[in-house]
Amino acid sequence: MIHKYKNEDKVLVAVDCIIFGFDQETLKLLLIKRGFEPEKGKWSLMGGFLKKQEAIGEAANRVLLTLTGLHDVYLEQLHVFGEIHRDPVERTVSVAYYALINIQDHNEELTKQYSAQWFDVNDFPSLILDHNLMVEKAIQQLRYKTSVKPIGFELLPDKFTMRQLQKLYEAILNQKLDKRNFTKKINSLDLLIKLDEKDRASSKKGSYLYQFDQDKYRERGSNGFKF
Amino acid sequence: MIHKYKNEDKVLVAVDCIIFGFDQETLKLLLIKRGFEPEKGKWSLMGGFLKKQEAIGEAANRVLLTLTGLHDVYLEQLHVFGEIHRDPVERTVSVAYYALINIQDHNEELTKQYSAQWFDVNDFPSLILDHNLMVEKAIQQLRYKTSVKPIGFELLPDKFTMRQLQKLYEAILNQKLDKRNFTKKINSLDLLIKLDEKDRASSKKGSYLYQFDQDKYRERGSNGFKF
Repeated sequence: MIHKYKNEDKVLVAVDCIIFGFDQETLKLLLIKRGFEPEKGKWSLMGGFLKKQEAIGEAANRVLLTLTGLHDVYLEQLHVFGEIHRDPVERTVSVAYYALINIQDHNEELTKQYSAQWFDVNDFPSLILDHNLMVEKAIQQLRYKTSVKPIGFELLPDKFTMRQLQKLYEAILNQKLDKRNFTKKINSLDLLIKLDEKDRASSKKGSYLYQFDQDKYRERGSNGFKF
Repeated sequence: MIHKYKNEDKVLVAVDCIIFGFDQETLKLLLIKRGFEPEKGKWSLMGGFLKKQEAIGEAANRVLLTLTGLHDVYLEQLHVFGEIHRDPVERTVSVAYYALINIQDHNEELTKQYSAQWFDVNDFPSLILDHNLMVEKAIQQLRYKTSVKPIGFELLPDKFTMRQLQKLYEAILNQKLDKRNFTKKINSLDLLIKLDEKDRASSKKGSYLYQFDQDKYRERGSNGFKF
């Protein structure tokens, strides 16, 4: 017997990217309007087909760069969506990735040059194919991951206030958190650097700025925590 | 513009299963010897190609059933391995799944009927293609998941002693645990039912048997924990 496969079993592989951003108040999702048939004019995730001479991770990065101009962002494989009829045009197995970006640094280019649009994760239009399922899974994964790994910081500016951090966790977990408990929990993780610098935009007195302590996290072997 | 794809970009999609078992002492990995060229006689994970008229999860279940006789086992998608040259014969994107099985219930059929073989996860032969990478990733994932979700119970008999449970955690985490601390931690999770029944195989006095409390776990919304 030899390594056997059937040519007719070859299928298209796609990558689809769920792109999350945070605008200091709510968790956002970046979508584009599909420019071609079928389903022209409907909202969609950023996606494209894997090329034969391309690794799957390369494809995800290419799709992200081509459709949004984004590179060097947090991008992680989420799940394979492989139902038979998920794409009515042609059998396509899709590998979903999710990206976390700091909206402030990227908003202008995204919405002007690429006609993408940010939507609130709790209020966005119905998407093509199984993209709604993908978003649902990505939100679950983001919730889960932020509760055990410090990936949420990817969504914040480099320097942030404790209030911004709490707002971010509230947006991801979709629930109000008690300020005192939140601060206590965050401090117990011991992963923040308190800067000798204040954000004076929100109040006259100002709020101390913090940075995530990458080095300390790495030194500890990048172990998870339970938020 | 229409929905465009190139036929030449169609690729094979494979599923590969990392199957974990626990023999009350060590964490084991189920492997088979490849029966065909190339790499005939080398050790391999259980794998096969996705059929065009089959969902990806169906393919994983079919491969598992065909090569091991196993069904109704814990099977979870792990990761997509999609490097260009990972399979030298033909471009193949592989979706890896991991399975957790209770060795006691299945050992005989597996090793007799299907000529599969169990290996210690710390001591197994070099595998074909990128299967060693897959195993590494699966072990990491298993370690991570058992520390936040009660999936380890899939590897134990329905009823087990506290010692067996500790042995399991030690095997997965690959480190000795202090008995007192372990018992305290497990009890604090409050997910075990202590039975009015003893295992008398190990000692005359016997050890109480426990069961995992599925209902209680579900009632709490299947929330994770930090072990």
